[in-house]
Amino acid sequence: METKFTFAKTLIREAGSFIRSEMTENLKIEEKTRFDDLVTNLDKNAQELLIAKIKTAYPEDNVMAEENGVRHPITDGHVWILDPIDGTVNFIVQRENFAVMIAYYEDGVGRFGLIYDVMNDVLYAGGGRFDVYANDKKLFSYRDKPFNRCLIGANSSMYAENIHGIRDLSRQTLGVRVYGGAGISMSHVMSGRLLAYFSYIQPWDYAAAFIMGEKLGYRLLTLDGQKPDFKSRQMVMFVPEQKLKAIQQFIK
Amino acid sequence: METKFTFAKTLIREAGSFIRSEMTENLKIEEKTRFDDLVTNLDKNAQELLIAKIKTAYPEDNVMAEENGVRHPITDGHVWILDPIDGTVNFIVQRENFAVMIAYYEDGVGRFGLIYDVMNDVLYAGGGRFDVYANDKKLFSYRDKPFNRCLIGANSSMYAENIHGIRDLSRQTLGVRVYGGAGISMSHVMSGRLLAYFSYIQPWDYAAAFIMGEKLGYRLLTLDGQKPDFKSRQMVMFVPEQKLKAIQQFIK
Repeated sequence: METKFTFAKTLIREAGSFIRSEMTENLKIEEKTRFDDLVTNLDKNAQELLIAKIKTAYPEDNVMAEENGVRHPITDGHVWILDPIDGTVNFIVQRENFAVMIAYYEDGVGRFGLIYDVMNDVLYAGGGRFDVYANDKKLFSYRDKPFNRCLIGANSSMYAENIHGIRDLSRQTLGVRVYGGAGISMSHVMSGRLLAYFSYIQPWDYAAAFIMGEKLGYRLLTLDGQKPDFKSRQMVMFVPEQKLKAIQQFIK
Repeated sequence: METKFTFAKTLIREAGSFIRSEMTENLKIEEKTRFDDLVTNLDKNAQELLIAKIKTAYPEDNVMAEENGVRHPITDGHVWILDPIDGTVNFIVQRENFAVMIAYYEDGVGRFGLIYDVMNDVLYAGGGRFDVYANDKKLFSYRDKPFNRCLIGANSSMYAENIHGIRDLSRQTLGVRVYGGAGISMSHVMSGRLLAYFSYIQPWDYAAAFIMGEKLGYRLLTLDGQKPDFKSRQMVMFVPEQKLKAIQQFIK
């Protein structure tokens, strides 16, 4: 497991370097389901790079990934879950605030997760048997603070429409932040900049944070408090275990 | 003017260093008008530092500043407008994503403005006779893009409640970002990461961006299209001049 974790840390930085070096050229942007659901040639090429290296190193392992319908089920054997560029809109418009994410599961059990904030060059990695680090800084487990000294992160529409009470919860806090990427937002939760994060996302958006969060005292749950299915897009929250009951007074 | 601009650039970095060095200690946090309107001892001390240095260098000059009711009118003589920590909530909770801001006006005419992103160590400075730089990188004037390749920044409540049509506008774009500080948000507009910014803010929140923006093709206007009054808290927008008419089809 140690070897695989080391492999993953090297791999994700390689993917980040690849994206940084290719980002200067004009991006080929395509619409997926609608005008604001975008993919670029770099999302696809970075995913190809990740899959090729995993398949070379571990030919028996399987992959679930965002692009091109790569969908091996998480519960079946050794599965790498990949999001080559999380926060594609930020990537396209801002050229920052996006992440590469990798999670590794064995028969549905999370072994380690990685979120790489590419432009800030910060790698969040750990979970399972491994402590969680942001580069060489070990992250502390969640330490409790009152709502009125915290911020929450959320999907903008779910906040605006008060889905499941997200806006009600935000009113107990110092407010909401919308950063536009699950990976970046959940890394802010793990580093204490946000108390919690609420969004409507896919397995590859939450698989890495799910594993690292567990190690730090956070839980990744659907908004009705269940384990997510790792199959479909769901409304989920990434919250401190210690604060779960207090949060569930608002998030119903 | 050259000397004053150089003085201001040195001064704002000094204030930033002061904040960074004092930030490690426990902050004394006070509520101003309500539980989420906060001020810390460092906001006040940084403002005192700024005022003391300005008064020593330019004893005849006057000051308008956020804390302690320092409110010299912008139209009367040589006036420095100061926001010692813009984004106080981010400062308290995140220890990043806040700015020091300085603007300098002569009889109501903006001569230069400065926004210092303290933790990223990026100084946006210029306007009037001076080109606008982000550290040593000259910023380009606004270059047009279609709405569907842009993001907007906004105050979360104004977005959620569709005040003056902000949410309608956001639906034409790739979405909204909420960063929680006028200075940081308007620096993102000037560097092209956001198309525009909408908030409900005070003169010291917009005075610097007003001057720099003018130089880069942006305008700081009230949501009904007027020049702000530089006296009271108003709902304002920071938008590309070239896009003003298109934006005003939604922002009414």
